[in-house]
Amino acid sequence: MIVEIIATGNEVVEGDVVNSNASWLALRAREQGWEVRFHTAVPDEESCIAAALRQAVGRAQIVLVTGGLGPTSDDLTLEIAARAFARPLQVDVPSLERIRGFFTRLGRKLTPNQEKQALIPQGSRVLPNEVGTAPGAYWREGGTHLAFFPGVPQEMKKMFTRHFLPQMAAWAGGKVQLAKTLHCFGLPEGELDHRLTPLLGEGRKLGEVLVGFRVRFPTLDLRLRAEAADAAGAQEKLAQAAASIRAALGEYVFGEDEVRLEEVVGRLLREKKQKLAVAESCTGGLLVDWMTDIPGASDYFLEGAVTYSNAAKVRQLGVSPG
Amino acid sequence: MIVEIIATGNEVVEGDVVNSNASWLALRAREQGWEVRFHTAVPDEESCIAAALRQAVGRAQIVLVTGGLGPTSDDLTLEIAARAFARPLQVDVPSLERIRGFFTRLGRKLTPNQEKQALIPQGSRVLPNEVGTAPGAYWREGGTHLAFFPGVPQEMKKMFTRHFLPQMAAWAGGKVQLAKTLHCFGLPEGELDHRLTPLLGEGRKLGEVLVGFRVRFPTLDLRLRAEAADAAGAQEKLAQAAASIRAALGEYVFGEDEVRLEEVVGRLLREKKQKLAVAESCTGGLLVDWMTDIPGASDYFLEGAVTYSNAAKVRQLGVSPG
Repeated sequence: MIVEIIATGNEVVEGDVVNSNASWLALRAREQGWEVRFHTAVPDEESCIAAALRQAVGRAQIVLVTGGLGPTSDDLTLEIAARAFARPLQVDVPSLERIRGFFTRLGRKLTPNQEKQALIPQGSRVLPNEVGTAPGAYWREGGTHLAFFPGVPQEMKKMFTRHFLPQMAAWAGGKVQLAKTLHCFGLPEGELDHRLTPLLGEGRKLGEVLVGFRVRFPTLDLRLRAEAADAAGAQEKLAQAAASIRAALGEYVFGEDEVRLEEVVGRLLREKKQKLAVAESCTGGLLVDWMTDIPGASDYFLEGAVTYSNAAKVRQLGVSPG
Repeated sequence: MIVEIIATGNEVVEGDVVNSNASWLALRAREQGWEVRFHTAVPDEESCIAAALRQAVGRAQIVLVTGGLGPTSDDLTLEIAARAFARPLQVDVPSLERIRGFFTRLGRKLTPNQEKQALIPQGSRVLPNEVGTAPGAYWREGGTHLAFFPGVPQEMKKMFTRHFLPQMAAWAGGKVQLAKTLHCFGLPEGELDHRLTPLLGEGRKLGEVLVGFRVRFPTLDLRLRAEAADAAGAQEKLAQAAASIRAALGEYVFGEDEVRLEEVVGRLLREKKQKLAVAESCTGGLLVDWMTDIPGASDYFLEGAVTYSNAAKVRQLGVSPG
């Protein structure tokens, strides 16, 4: 299926924001076996957004749109899409309740511009937003799947992975393909491969799950992909494959999906009430930077020594000179 | 003038490369007072590239295209543009000589795919490439200025700034607008402003040069913009304004344009044969990272201490406890 990715927003077109949403979505689309052929970015203007949407629906089977779902007056994407495809906006009651609840919990007053985020085009389905207030929307326009996401990357990513992808299969009447990443550390690539080989059949498959490698310094990632009639089926296959791999690799698998090594290290240090100090040379502060990038790192992180010169290595670290 | 920015290349469309060229070009276009309205990215395929070029020429007055000028078989942008606009490719002899000279100096054989980089469409002008082998090209297609740049950011940026912008004015029959950045360090924004105010007239202009502020941690940037009938005239105005500002701010101006603070610090250390060690806390290695990011930093950089805990501050830095 041919994919077009559209970003709406002056901040993208004018260059204040680099459109990293487009490359993230393109990578995810490729994992599904879809073919991304067009990226487009247009300003927050009705004529530009409407023309881009119509063109995309005419040349792609899946159109992924980011941006312009928020509460401000320049967040117009769904309103414009509703007019472009003659689908009057309607209140989505569960979304409105969610937004109201969000403001009540914060003790803030709900303003009309916040309420407008609960308006979605007729015949569309809501893509829930677990991170922010603005829901996304999905519908089919002729033969094209059209999905709208917020521009904020963490909202868009969660909505895409948790709500759009699993349901896409049902909507498309096809199969769901889901992916899971196992992050490994401490084994060289060759050794990891050696330990995995007995598990893998033809075409690097573990049962029906495809297993790929990806070196993402400083970790080695195993990328698992499974296909099934529905999301639950694909997730079940992924979970089984992950369990077999974890049994074979043991502690070398330190986390799954969005988990980062420095978070796991931090959590273990906190659990064991241990402290960390690091010494580095050529990496020039990279390790300190990673470790202190985690909120609350001061609970366990003591200090870092970047001993660049030999004299510093000898004096600070007790390295034997020469 | 309305601008469209087109990126060609599978690596962009498929998400392997984030299209940061588009945002860089958009920022530069805004500085010229042009209005960027469209970003487009398409794969290395004739039908997609030709359609994107035709659409852009129909809706923009300036079309900036990046990617696909190199020697490999998927570098097809100019070839496709030549066919799309019926401008047969012709050898640009100076470019061919430059490419030959480049390979001769390297002691390597010039292959036909390298030679093809010297082919440019009929009626176009060469935009010289000072960094790599593939030249860019410029021509007017009806009322639209069409310019082609390499996808490699440092080649594209230099070509755009040094060759496209200065000549654009002559081509457009308008004025050239050029910008210069003065990087400042060590003065708070208010104090800097206070020292500049006596120099500035109405509309924050120094003579005919517009002066703007930009905070780019850890430096404060002064952005100068000047307009003239040609590039030399604009550069002359910028140079005069820069000299007045440097006279008023003295050593707080540490560099211009692409120069970075850490490079200047490194150069001074090397000149004075001095060494540097740094101590940081909350910045968590940021300072070490900057300083060691400069090639040859080991000549002067000794070590960094990231003293995150109080105990480390006391022990390593002799900070008084409590």
